Amino acid sequence: MRFNLRPRADEFYDFFKEAADNLVKGAAILSELSLPDADHQSISDRLVDTEHANDDVTHRMLRTLNSTFVTPFDREDIYQLGSQLDDVMDHMEAVGNLIYLYGLSKLPSLPREMHELIEVLIASADQTLQAMSRLKSMRDLEPYWIEVNRLENEGDRAYRMLLVRLFSGEYDALTVMKLKEVADELEAAADAFEHVANTVETIAVKES
Amino acid sequence: MRFNLRPRADEFYDFFKEAADNLVKGAAILSELSLPDADHQSISDRLVDTEHANDDVTHRMLRTLNSTFVTPFDREDIYQLGSQLDDVMDHMEAVGNLIYLYGLSKLPSLPREMHELIEVLIASADQTLQAMSRLKSMRDLEPYWIEVNRLENEGDRAYRMLLVRLFSGEYDALTVMKLKEVADELEAAADAFEHVANTVETIAVKES
Amino acid sequence: MRFNLRPRADEFYDFFKEAADNLVKGAAILSELSLPDADHQSISDRLVDTEHANDDVTHRMLRTLNSTFVTPFDREDIYQLGSQLDDVMDHMEAVGNLIYLYGLSKLPSLPREMHELIEVLIASADQTLQAMSRLKSMRDLEPYWIEVNRLENEGDRAYRMLLVRLFSGEYDALTVMKLKEVADELEAAADAFEHVANTVETIAVKES
Repeated sequence: MRFNLRPRADEFYDFFKEAADNLVKGAAILSELSLPDADHQSISDRLVDTEHANDDVTHRMLRTLNSTFVTPFDREDIYQLGSQLDDVMDHMEAVGNLIYLYGLSKLPSLPREMHELIEVLIASADQTLQAMSRLKSMRDLEPYWIEVNRLENEGDRAYRMLLVRLFSGEYDALTVMKLKEVADELEAAADAFEHVANTVETIAVKES
Repeated sequence: MRFNLRPRADEFYDFFKEAADNLVKGAAILSELSLPDADHQSISDRLVDTEHANDDVTHRMLRTLNSTFVTPFDREDIYQLGSQLDDVMDHMEAVGNLIYLYGLSKLPSLPREMHELIEVLIASADQTLQAMSRLKSMRDLEPYWIEVNRLENEGDRAYRMLLVRLFSGEYDALTVMKLKEVADELEAAADAFEHVANTVETIAVKES
Repeated sequence: MRFNLRPRADEFYDFFKEAADNLVKGAAILSELSLPDADHQSISDRLVDTEHANDDVTHRMLRTLNSTFVTPFDREDIYQLGSQLDDVMDHMEAVGNLIYLYGLSKLPSLPREMHELIEVLIASADQTLQAMSRLKSMRDLEPYWIEVNRLENEGDRAYRMLLVRLFSGEYDALTVMKLKEVADELEAAADAFEHVANTVETIAVKES
């Protein structure tokens, strides 16, 4: 029986890597927002596609979880890690979609602090993908969660300065409200990466 | 001893049904907002009453939980299900109260997407009440959580389009802010129904 | 072996008291906002310092938790209590920092309801510090969580009336948005105190 169960357990590591890979793709699409001729509709469409692909990963993972008796670590932690990776993707997709829906392409450019937040997402996604590859061995995970926590703090600072700029009178009230919605999703994505890292830390501490 | 304990365990199903019944009532009261001569003060007052009645259910449930040794399923899950049903009611009450407090009755009508969100709440409440009646047998619960997840996605779409309308220039900035607060509570109520469904799914998976 | 383990277990109570003590300090600093000649920069700076000091407590607690085999109660609950005390501090620091960053010192005074929310935080911090001192004996904790829940309800009411005032036309749209960000952090701090109280209740119920 054990022969049948081990391979299943291994599938979870693949699901997590696949989800993290989608986050790297999502962050790369978001980085196009800094291009002078960014195509907001195409960015939004491709983020929606990536989000759908990731939903599929999450559902397959949950189905496997529900039909697997022996899991590589606590069921609750697998469930939480999967949901939290999914949350990151949802917030990234929202960023692209809201910028498109609100017609923010009419602005000459997005505030600089938004691009700083996107840089935080790119770095966090990279770190997360690397960590997911080390999850099976449980080695060298501490630098990962320390770095993602540092990145989240950096994102927090960028978010605060972004709001200072939005409220400075540079934009009219309705534009401020639109940009604030986008800012909130960017910050929620950075937060969601930290939640993933906290769960990995919890798992690593239990296993050690 | 077992004779004394079983009946207590049964009480939990009654508490959950009673709470879900309050959510059906709350959603019905909210649906009056679409009437041309809606009485916003009366809607708010009756939602406050329903919320108080539901607080009472939640407190009785928690007291029973704390004094019961054998529970029909994990204590944490009972606690969570009770709190999450309570959360839905809190957000519904906030919708009615904020519309009244902000004097939004002066608007010729609420944005169409708000009524769509209320339709989502009505359908979610219906689904939840039916599911609470099936909780003891644990039968046919999957269609419930699938449907509530679908409804929540529908609510998400309505919420996004509602914000697009709010930021379109149709309303002045302060009215937008008021309507946005109401919109956030509507969306939080739809989300909270999904949290209830996720907990029911967790319970069902553990029991299966 | 027991001799070595008990003292470590005791450390957790000290960490919680130290964190609660920081919250009392933070609330006292916030109370200076009601002074006619409040120095917003100094208030912000001292809140940042207190938050850093509290981060240090939280990190030491987590390190001790990860290296301790026998804990006075469930590891998850210790972890949660520590994080939730830390959350309160983060929101308090944000209040002071945002008021300073947004230049709200230019207003003749902050809305009265903000001071009411700060009063709620002062009372909640006091209650929390006293409860942390009783955590080891697990005695007389019920009045604490009842009172913090009551305070949170009071805070909720003050928050709602604060928004009514902000949206009343007394301030221009951008100032409303700034004050709303501050209001949200005040309310989040009151909520976070309730989360601490809920965790203490959970711990007490398990131990009883």
